[in-house]
Amino acid sequence: MSFDVQALAVEGVRALSPYQPGKPIDELARELGLDPSGIVKLASNENPLGPSTLALEAAHAALAELCRYPDGNGFALKAKLADRLKLESAQITLGNGSNDILEVIARCFADHTSEIVFSQYAFAVYPLVAQAIGARGISVPARDWGHDLDAMAAAVTERTSIVFIANPNNPTGTVHSGEAIEAFLDRVPERVLVVLDEAYCEYLEDGSQDDSLAWLSRYPNLIITRTFSKAWGLAALRVGYSLSSPEIADILNRVRQPFNVDSIALAAATAVLGDQAYLDRSRQVNSAGLKQLSEGFEALGLGYIPSAGNFIAVEIGGNAGDIYQALLRKGVIVRPVAGYGMPGHLRVSVGLPEENARLLTALGEVLAETGTGGRG
Amino acid sequence: MSFDVQALAVEGVRALSPYQPGKPIDELARELGLDPSGIVKLASNENPLGPSTLALEAAHAALAELCRYPDGNGFALKAKLADRLKLESAQITLGNGSNDILEVIARCFADHTSEIVFSQYAFAVYPLVAQAIGARGISVPARDWGHDLDAMAAAVTERTSIVFIANPNNPTGTVHSGEAIEAFLDRVPERVLVVLDEAYCEYLEDGSQDDSLAWLSRYPNLIITRTFSKAWGLAALRVGYSLSSPEIADILNRVRQPFNVDSIALAAATAVLGDQAYLDRSRQVNSAGLKQLSEGFEALGLGYIPSAGNFIAVEIGGNAGDIYQALLRKGVIVRPVAGYGMPGHLRVSVGLPEENARLLTALGEVLAETGTGGRG
Repeated sequence: MSFDVQALAVEGVRALSPYQPGKPIDELARELGLDPSGIVKLASNENPLGPSTLALEAAHAALAELCRYPDGNGFALKAKLADRLKLESAQITLGNGSNDILEVIARCFADHTSEIVFSQYAFAVYPLVAQAIGARGISVPARDWGHDLDAMAAAVTERTSIVFIANPNNPTGTVHSGEAIEAFLDRVPERVLVVLDEAYCEYLEDGSQDDSLAWLSRYPNLIITRTFSKAWGLAALRVGYSLSSPEIADILNRVRQPFNVDSIALAAATAVLGDQAYLDRSRQVNSAGLKQLSEGFEALGLGYIPSAGNFIAVEIGGNAGDIYQALLRKGVIVRPVAGYGMPGHLRVSVGLPEENARLLTALGEVLAETGTGGRG
Repeated sequence: MSFDVQALAVEGVRALSPYQPGKPIDELARELGLDPSGIVKLASNENPLGPSTLALEAAHAALAELCRYPDGNGFALKAKLADRLKLESAQITLGNGSNDILEVIARCFADHTSEIVFSQYAFAVYPLVAQAIGARGISVPARDWGHDLDAMAAAVTERTSIVFIANPNNPTGTVHSGEAIEAFLDRVPERVLVVLDEAYCEYLEDGSQDDSLAWLSRYPNLIITRTFSKAWGLAALRVGYSLSSPEIADILNRVRQPFNVDSIALAAATAVLGDQAYLDRSRQVNSAGLKQLSEGFEALGLGYIPSAGNFIAVEIGGNAGDIYQALLRKGVIVRPVAGYGMPGHLRVSVGLPEENARLLTALGEVLAETGTGGRG
């Protein structure tokens, strides 16, 4: 009998395709023999500013204790988050990025008997975490590229354990008002956990990112997830967190790995919360970049989905995969979203002004070379 | 109807008690109002040397890219590990500490229908990962504090999906010869995965830590796990890995989180592999420390379990919990192991000579104060 390891894997895992991250700069440089310093990466919704000085200093200082395990309870970071957000440390669960939290939530509250509801064109990790535990993922058709909240509420059944809502949504950048999310929460039975993924909430310009915190006391089935990887500029370090009732946090804390966030990450995240100027600058650069990219796409005759995030999905047409490859050869990395069911779009992260300009120039050249006209 | 979130959790999670890590220095300082610099922590099997200079330099350099996501494929670290261990990168799966790998293995290959076999007095994470997925954990009674490999082989049933073997074992420090492990592998059916947890293998002084690598080509159901947290001195950063067939690694890589190891961790781990002098010094300090602690325990009239790791379980008697508390008040943190079913022992990590001496002095004082005589 030959050894078939696939047959030993649990059912959901056998058919699983892993998440496809944005192509790293070093990888492209290796593949095409390019100089890494000449490559522009606008593929992973990273903060283009470079790190906060306060975060850097704290990370430096923490290196002295490399031999020690992290504080598994994340005491200092949770205390500072609780203070900033005006809630209790016991409501916070720390994760190795919010990806970790999303996965832990699914493993705590869903199994092979469950259904997990999410939107078409939403974050790829939702269906992956559902499949890995053998739960049934229910993808609800989007409306205008965004979540159709009415249809999602209607998709909840007796078997539904979790609903994932991304607001703003990745990769489309669509956003719902606080009123719309509240109306949705009112419609969902309490026995169904609603995970409000706010990875991009810091980029909202109307102050509405604070609305959801007030809901925690009214909706005991609500879990909000956030991250330090985007506006706070710490993607390298993997720190995310959830906000919930203390009871939910207690359950999540049983299942997360005891040292899921490392010491350098804890130190840098704690420090960056004191750098409001960095956050403000991140928002300004993003706002200007969204304008620059939108106007540039319009000038190229390309449509796009208006975005509330730090990225924008531009409509290329049927050959977006070819355009992606052609941009790579010019040293510009963006993100194909065919895996999200959007084969005609590319997702472009907002960069610095010169990076955005480099992308627009390269895109214009590629469109001309391939004879792709756009709509103009 | 009041909201009962416990009832929403999956069955295994409802009864789960999280892993209890060693008490952090800062936590003890807060609790007792002590100066952190005066506290000695010998509780988490950390490398007492402080970090490798090469690792520190690489970590420093990597901080420049804090805003970028890590290389999710860990290209450079896997290439360097493959070169050192003389196997293929495709055989390596990276984890956020080996804890991550142990959990991912369980989630890939076991579910609520499975049994997972491990030894009494073995690493606490094995029963926890089993319980979290609803699998049945089978704890096989130990022999002389170590794994009873014959009894473990006999405990394998049609439902067994995974056997965990820790060699050397934590918290007892017991070790089996390569011949004994091989004989065990010969007895276990191929459809049962054997996870050989070698977190402490770098401390073996007879060179036998390389034996297991040769078994990978002969036993397609073997997974070896290792870590950078112990002898390599990078506990703060959370890097572990598994070695297996490429087919098993492919499955593990589908389920691990795409950015489970962060950029600083990847850089430091890659660099430290070039610091053989650090590893050699770690071994020397450990060897001398084990001798110092063993002789000190003997002088106090205390028994202990001879250890192949960087820690030693000392036999205190029925009141080990009281002795642990009394040591805390003297600013010395060791590890109670009542949770492992060893209420009469304390686990002491090997420290620097002056740290070991401080523990021995404090222990002597505490034993005298409490009237605990030891055996002498």
